[in-house]
Amino acid sequence: MIGLFDSGIGGLTVVRELKRLLPGVALAYFGDTARTPYGNKSAEVISRYGLEATKFLVEKGCQLVVVACNTVSAVGLPAIRQAYPQLPLFDVITPAVSAVSRLPLKRKKVGVMGTRALVGSNIYQRLLAEVNGFTVVARAAPLLVPLVEEGWFDKPETKRLVRHYLRPFKQAQVEALVLACTHYPLLKEVIVSRLGKKITIIDPAMATAAAVVEWLKQHPGIDSRLERGSSRFYVSDLTDHTQTIAQKWLGQKITLERASLSLK
Amino acid sequence: MIGLFDSGIGGLTVVRELKRLLPGVALAYFGDTARTPYGNKSAEVISRYGLEATKFLVEKGCQLVVVACNTVSAVGLPAIRQAYPQLPLFDVITPAVSAVSRLPLKRKKVGVMGTRALVGSNIYQRLLAEVNGFTVVARAAPLLVPLVEEGWFDKPETKRLVRHYLRPFKQAQVEALVLACTHYPLLKEVIVSRLGKKITIIDPAMATAAAVVEWLKQHPGIDSRLERGSSRFYVSDLTDHTQTIAQKWLGQKITLERASLSLK
Repeated sequence: MIGLFDSGIGGLTVVRELKRLLPGVALAYFGDTARTPYGNKSAEVISRYGLEATKFLVEKGCQLVVVACNTVSAVGLPAIRQAYPQLPLFDVITPAVSAVSRLPLKRKKVGVMGTRALVGSNIYQRLLAEVNGFTVVARAAPLLVPLVEEGWFDKPETKRLVRHYLRPFKQAQVEALVLACTHYPLLKEVIVSRLGKKITIIDPAMATAAAVVEWLKQHPGIDSRLERGSSRFYVSDLTDHTQTIAQKWLGQKITLERASLSLK
Repeated sequence: MIGLFDSGIGGLTVVRELKRLLPGVALAYFGDTARTPYGNKSAEVISRYGLEATKFLVEKGCQLVVVACNTVSAVGLPAIRQAYPQLPLFDVITPAVSAVSRLPLKRKKVGVMGTRALVGSNIYQRLLAEVNGFTVVARAAPLLVPLVEEGWFDKPETKRLVRHYLRPFKQAQVEALVLACTHYPLLKEVIVSRLGKKITIIDPAMATAAAVVEWLKQHPGIDSRLERGSSRFYVSDLTDHTQTIAQKWLGQKITLERASLSLK
């Protein structure tokens, strides 16, 4: 089984892409709704939460885990890799970096919009600037997460906040913008209408799903053993609001299950 | 020692009031920054968190605990009272209800602005409407919490959101508004300038601090044994951002300490 996790249900945007590319494959998703959001928390706490989510998915029988959370991908991978050295582990940053580095950009100037923890980690600066010679403009946009969770996709208040957060990217004249939080793709329309079509939008969810599919092609042994059938969606806390927006975001009827694990 | 806790550092608004009324008394504060915010979570999870925070404060030697969180006060008190039947326990709702019931209101029409969990609990409707004959208009304003945590006290975006959330209260022509989340008093200026001075603002932090002082007067035994000296401020997760805004909110220099407890 393929496992995916996120701080909440934002990672369902990655599930959606993976389901599109691998219809019929059973997925196990874990959303840590009892402790969401992660974006303003410390690297130490985020690493611990990422480790616990991985453990949960491995115990559910997942042979491959996708860290469908930009924040954990930015600061929590070393802890997970150390605890599970044999586990095929995918993050949402490496595929996005590959996607950016393949873009035919004249000035190699890229924006990264993410959580405070992701921007503070300097991960995109390290991977894109130092290794690939890009100029990276990284900015945190913490208020977009709660806006999306309220379902305020195209309210005037949303447009105003998006405008506020996009300003430094426009001023810096970036040629591409990475939406480095699983919530942001849900605001893609508002973002594109504000940025214009000349700036390429990189959605790590799509790049990550493609990377997983590519890897499976190269590992037919695991691919052929992947379970087919219905997916399971676990959350550490369950409310009516979460159930409603989860279905809306995934675009299909699902039943969230309260995870029985005792998270620390 | 007097203990206080909140989901994060919003409860420092209660600490501030208590310090004003009881200068010199040592307080112990716990903010669950590793799992903040509570407002959109389920009653079950909120109760568990409230219980763990109380346990932490009791183990630190607190003889009196103030639930400085409107959300835990709304849904978590039964669990705490059951676990600590002997502990003098204060919540932020009962004192606010008393304050409202003493107001000389012509139409007895009161607004309550709080988190989704608080509004969903119907606690104000039960205590003010059923017992005291008030008409209660309760609405959730979830986006104000992250706005305050960003320190956006008087940005145009903040004013716009405040206007949005105040609309139903203005339409219903409430005569008083309870700010039923520890974050909202930090927006008091914007709220008052929008509502006008005819609508009385009730800040549960002030009512609660006054209730604690009143109770101590009636229990001189405990009052005389209260520790004097410096207060301690514990958080379950510590970042630079939290440290910065905590000092700003409390209006004095403090050192947050990472709580060593292993919260579940």
